Amino acid sequence: MISFTCDYTEGAHPAILEALQRTNLDQQPGYGADCYTAAARARIREACACPGADVYLLIGGTQTNSTVIATMLRDYQGVVAAQTGHIAVHEAGAVEYTGHKVLTLPQREGKISARDLETYLEGFYADGSYDHMVFPGMVYISFPTEYGTLYSKAELKAVKTVCEAYKLPFFVDGARLGYGLMSPDCDITLQELSGLCDVFTIGGTKVGALCGEAVVFPAGNAPEHFFTMVKQHGALLAKGRLPGVQFETLFTDGLYFSIARNAIDRAMELKALFVSRGYELFLDSPTNQQFILLTEAAAKALDGQVAYEVWERLPDGRAVTRFATSWATTREQINTLASLLPTA
Amino acid sequence: MISFTCDYTEGAHPAILEALQRTNLDQQPGYGADCYTAAARARIREACACPGADVYLLIGGTQTNSTVIATMLRDYQGVVAAQTGHIAVHEAGAVEYTGHKVLTLPQREGKISARDLETYLEGFYADGSYDHMVFPGMVYISFPTEYGTLYSKAELKAVKTVCEAYKLPFFVDGARLGYGLMSPDCDITLQELSGLCDVFTIGGTKVGALCGEAVVFPAGNAPEHFFTMVKQHGALLAKGRLPGVQFETLFTDGLYFSIARNAIDRAMELKALFVSRGYELFLDSPTNQQFILLTEAAAKALDGQVAYEVWERLPDGRAVTRFATSWATTREQINTLASLLPTA
Amino acid sequence: MISFTCDYTEGAHPAILEALQRTNLDQQPGYGADCYTAAARARIREACACPGADVYLLIGGTQTNSTVIATMLRDYQGVVAAQTGHIAVHEAGAVEYTGHKVLTLPQREGKISARDLETYLEGFYADGSYDHMVFPGMVYISFPTEYGTLYSKAELKAVKTVCEAYKLPFFVDGARLGYGLMSPDCDITLQELSGLCDVFTIGGTKVGALCGEAVVFPAGNAPEHFFTMVKQHGALLAKGRLPGVQFETLFTDGLYFSIARNAIDRAMELKALFVSRGYELFLDSPTNQQFILLTEAAAKALDGQVAYEVWERLPDGRAVTRFATSWATTREQINTLASLLPTA
Amino acid sequence: MISFTCDYTEGAHPAILEALQRTNLDQQPGYGADCYTAAARARIREACACPGADVYLLIGGTQTNSTVIATMLRDYQGVVAAQTGHIAVHEAGAVEYTGHKVLTLPQREGKISARDLETYLEGFYADGSYDHMVFPGMVYISFPTEYGTLYSKAELKAVKTVCEAYKLPFFVDGARLGYGLMSPDCDITLQELSGLCDVFTIGGTKVGALCGEAVVFPAGNAPEHFFTMVKQHGALLAKGRLPGVQFETLFTDGLYFSIARNAIDRAMELKALFVSRGYELFLDSPTNQQFILLTEAAAKALDGQVAYEVWERLPDGRAVTRFATSWATTREQINTLASLLPTA
Repeated sequence: MISFTCDYTEGAHPAILEALQRTNLDQQPGYGADCYTAAARARIREACACPGADVYLLIGGTQTNSTVIATMLRDYQGVVAAQTGHIAVHEAGAVEYTGHKVLTLPQREGKISARDLETYLEGFYADGSYDHMVFPGMVYISFPTEYGTLYSKAELKAVKTVCEAYKLPFFVDGARLGYGLMSPDCDITLQELSGLCDVFTIGGTKVGALCGEAVVFPAGNAPEHFFTMVKQHGALLAKGRLPGVQFETLFTDGLYFSIARNAIDRAMELKALFVSRGYELFLDSPTNQQFILLTEAAAKALDGQVAYEVWERLPDGRAVTRFATSWATTREQINTLASLLPTA
Repeated sequence: MISFTCDYTEGAHPAILEALQRTNLDQQPGYGADCYTAAARARIREACACPGADVYLLIGGTQTNSTVIATMLRDYQGVVAAQTGHIAVHEAGAVEYTGHKVLTLPQREGKISARDLETYLEGFYADGSYDHMVFPGMVYISFPTEYGTLYSKAELKAVKTVCEAYKLPFFVDGARLGYGLMSPDCDITLQELSGLCDVFTIGGTKVGALCGEAVVFPAGNAPEHFFTMVKQHGALLAKGRLPGVQFETLFTDGLYFSIARNAIDRAMELKALFVSRGYELFLDSPTNQQFILLTEAAAKALDGQVAYEVWERLPDGRAVTRFATSWATTREQINTLASLLPTA
Repeated sequence: MISFTCDYTEGAHPAILEALQRTNLDQQPGYGADCYTAAARARIREACACPGADVYLLIGGTQTNSTVIATMLRDYQGVVAAQTGHIAVHEAGAVEYTGHKVLTLPQREGKISARDLETYLEGFYADGSYDHMVFPGMVYISFPTEYGTLYSKAELKAVKTVCEAYKLPFFVDGARLGYGLMSPDCDITLQELSGLCDVFTIGGTKVGALCGEAVVFPAGNAPEHFFTMVKQHGALLAKGRLPGVQFETLFTDGLYFSIARNAIDRAMELKALFVSRGYELFLDSPTNQQFILLTEAAAKALDGQVAYEVWERLPDGRAVTRFATSWATTREQINTLASLLPTA
Repeated sequence: MISFTCDYTEGAHPAILEALQRTNLDQQPGYGADCYTAAARARIREACACPGADVYLLIGGTQTNSTVIATMLRDYQGVVAAQTGHIAVHEAGAVEYTGHKVLTLPQREGKISARDLETYLEGFYADGSYDHMVFPGMVYISFPTEYGTLYSKAELKAVKTVCEAYKLPFFVDGARLGYGLMSPDCDITLQELSGLCDVFTIGGTKVGALCGEAVVFPAGNAPEHFFTMVKQHGALLAKGRLPGVQFETLFTDGLYFSIARNAIDRAMELKALFVSRGYELFLDSPTNQQFILLTEAAAKALDGQVAYEVWERLPDGRAVTRFATSWATTREQINTLASLLPTA
């Protein structure tokens, strides 16, 4: 049984396990004061070309999003996101649990537009009763989105421009950042992204780590006492070395990027396979999540041998499915899929 | 440089790293639906002799405490704890952040007494204005305590009896549970403890794991939709296999207990060493945290070679210090300390 | 200058001021234990034909909504409301501030439909990832709605039926309840409403009182320790006599209903006036809020003499405006408006 | 039956009812934009000699405290208060409900000392683990205290000096402010108090109003968007005229002070009465709350004719009781008490 259900089905990249092994008995202080976290921070700052960046290593995506959002917002503010944004839908209300509303905008293939954002903001301040409403306090996007799609550099700049006009911090959730940056369709670098947003995350969990999300405040603009608030959110690890060793490894010799590239290569092969066999795409994703309209015959052919995620069943018998590749996906797995997949 | 500063200075027990390695590429579903989490749950249930227990694997101590407490309390309730309880002092207000007050009781060597608890509860309900106050909704203790001390079975039963009389769930924070259970002074087993409380945790982080705290509801009494609330608290790991593999390993062949025993053996050697050299104990701890009144001369002698934690400086020049051993502490480390330590 | 901007431009009905005067120096206990609150409760229970109802008197609308919602939901739950619902838009995120998401449904003239509710609930539980999402925990509607519209008895029953199927409490926000019940289009009585929902409010602020919203749990189903949680929400008045005297007065000899009727009669006259002069209605409201498409000429004619609320300016120069009548609106005020209003 | 149980047993001062009557049908905008609120603000600013002060009119004490505290603290901060402070004990955890810890200091007769505050703050920042703890973010005192006692000007200055050294806002809860300022023992004026703290409240509820607490930020230093956060806390009144008219009245011709003076005069008579009859004082209060050790014989003699509050029963049969006078207490009531009270 091969699984394409998600990009966190395996453990960690072997280099990470090796590094954990190698450093295991080295005695280090806790809570991120270890030398590995220091090294990870240095390498992330270097990769982002932001020598003054504040970098924190947290554990999981929902935790990271709610901690960043809650600590950057004031009580009267909410966070603006796409209606399909992860924080709006699939985080069990973690943002609201911290007291803040998620203010949703329309989306197209998981993306918001600068124009819709501006329209909303203009409308907000034009409304005579806005001080009875939740103020927009931050803009959140995911890159890639929940649909695998990417913002172009121009789109990001346009969103950033609106954010600046309204003095809103711009937060880029990079739970799958590597898979975005390594996409052939991506026209932006990590350095450029760092210059375009006020805070972003570098997802480790889905890109080769056992766990871990790096939070980067490119301008050294972490909220005051962020460390204490990370603890308050239950997001501070006693053994800070665990994400430290992992991110140090991922950002040594470009490992993060090369393994992300593998996922993209496999995803493009997978997409090409489906297209060549006559399947329709639900949308044309340039990253590691591929959305296929799978026929009943294909479902039957793959049953018990290939796993994937079903998002929705259509009236015509087909299903909207997601096939995700990852750093760990092999060409053999794609070949096995090819050997099983019937023509649509 | 040898460090006795805390019990989380190393990585993980080698068997855990080996297990992570061995299982690494096995594709598993996320969020705790993996086979390793299932196995860990089964073994923990067996070790507790609670076949119907609900077992959840979370990541860190503060996170676990605040999640358990917030999900078991109603809005009008607070949690009762010792003034020195970890949740009352060193968790950055994580419990209050969820909206609940920590109601503190006096402590002796880190412990509350059933009598003080009862006095407080009687007084609360005798106060005509109690419905203007925060209701006690749960009793929290740590075992061992923040001072390394242990409750006897009789003391636990007495607290439990009071809890039952007032229908209060009894929560035992076992961040260092192994070090408690393996102490020569401990007169209670894991099975007995499971029968005496309503929820407890089995700390992994400080007892051989990279991270991970198991939450056990012995009577299958987890709050409804606990999974969703774990997610809401940012405490749900995508790769549930990470704590799963670790707890499965720790609860195979009694590894958790044997490595905890190592820490206790080393701690007793360390204590004996200090006592034999004429040092006064701040208090006589039966577990892996030892509290020594260290002289200035000793501090000088150890400087740069042995690290420990300073809690408080006394007017006479001595310092209250904590020396913690762990699963990883070796006899050689104790010997080195012995070779450096002057007579008091 | 006459104002139709809202239904809280005046103080209180004279009978209320008279009652405050009459009872003023009578010494009474605080926090709702006074005899006037007791009398108010008794009369509200009688008016609702719910002898076992729990009745609490709070102060303001947002406060009441967030207190009721937060105390009836569990942490993993949100409240379902129309996208235009007051709690979703105009309460400054008060519900989210208590940690709960407002889950919005499409609306038509401010109303949700039982069908949309059911579709949402079916979809929620059909989604394989629902335990990563906020659970629907309660359904909120306003009666009348923010657009002045009313649910018919059949519509309310249909919503209630869906709520029962999913075990969701049904909350009716009656900030303008009197104006709903006294509408000629209303086909439900207060007693019938009490039997159709699990909690509702009787707005005093907008219907003749200085302040005050009565919360009614018809089946005596107030959350445990609701009193303490009301205090925790800052919603407990030391001088409970203030809402007590007011609601006792309002529910003596049907005053609440007769003064609400005045607002409706004036609103119908106002609507008839606009229609007879050729103005288009934005929507045909059967209650005290009337929505008129006002021409520029009319705006100029009324300028400085008649105040109303502008909701939106249309490209054709007209504006969507709200004219609200109240218990205090007089026939003279309508006549003055008539004397000023040009033909459209 | 005469009641001395508290200072909120009557309605409002007649001048307030008269003003409500007089202004009743004047149409005014809602939410504090009415002319009466404007006038009240102007008069309060004048009385405080703070022309630039921000003044907001809220409804109740707990509400006001939790709103002020929550909006002035950052997430990582708690509020420092006496162990007996109202916010620490009798507000049902309203502060914690907003996510903030109440950090308690020892008290003497309800008061904290600048020395204890400084010791705590020094200790906090000297503790190596302070960034795992809740940061002190504000200092709260009540004036008068819950025990009726007063801080001297020198004591207030000393607390303020410590606050300034640590950049902590200093909040004075004046729920009974009038009764403090009018005490013969008070050596500070309202103007001086305004210069010594960063925010304070002027209690209306206990000093002649039906409801209402004025929040004063003497330096115009209200938190940004305080209005919206007041709404979010459920503390914004639609009919802002209600507290507006009341505070305008109270601050016209010194009414607030003269009626507070009545309470003090009656309290001093009451205290003299008890002392002259041989009763011991629990503590010697200079304000309107008097604490008497009442004998069983006295309790019997007053039974059914005079009401008061029992705080605690002593082993010797006596009870710690509170007798509160107010703006409404008459000399006749004191005389009646005198006629009933036996010699101790």
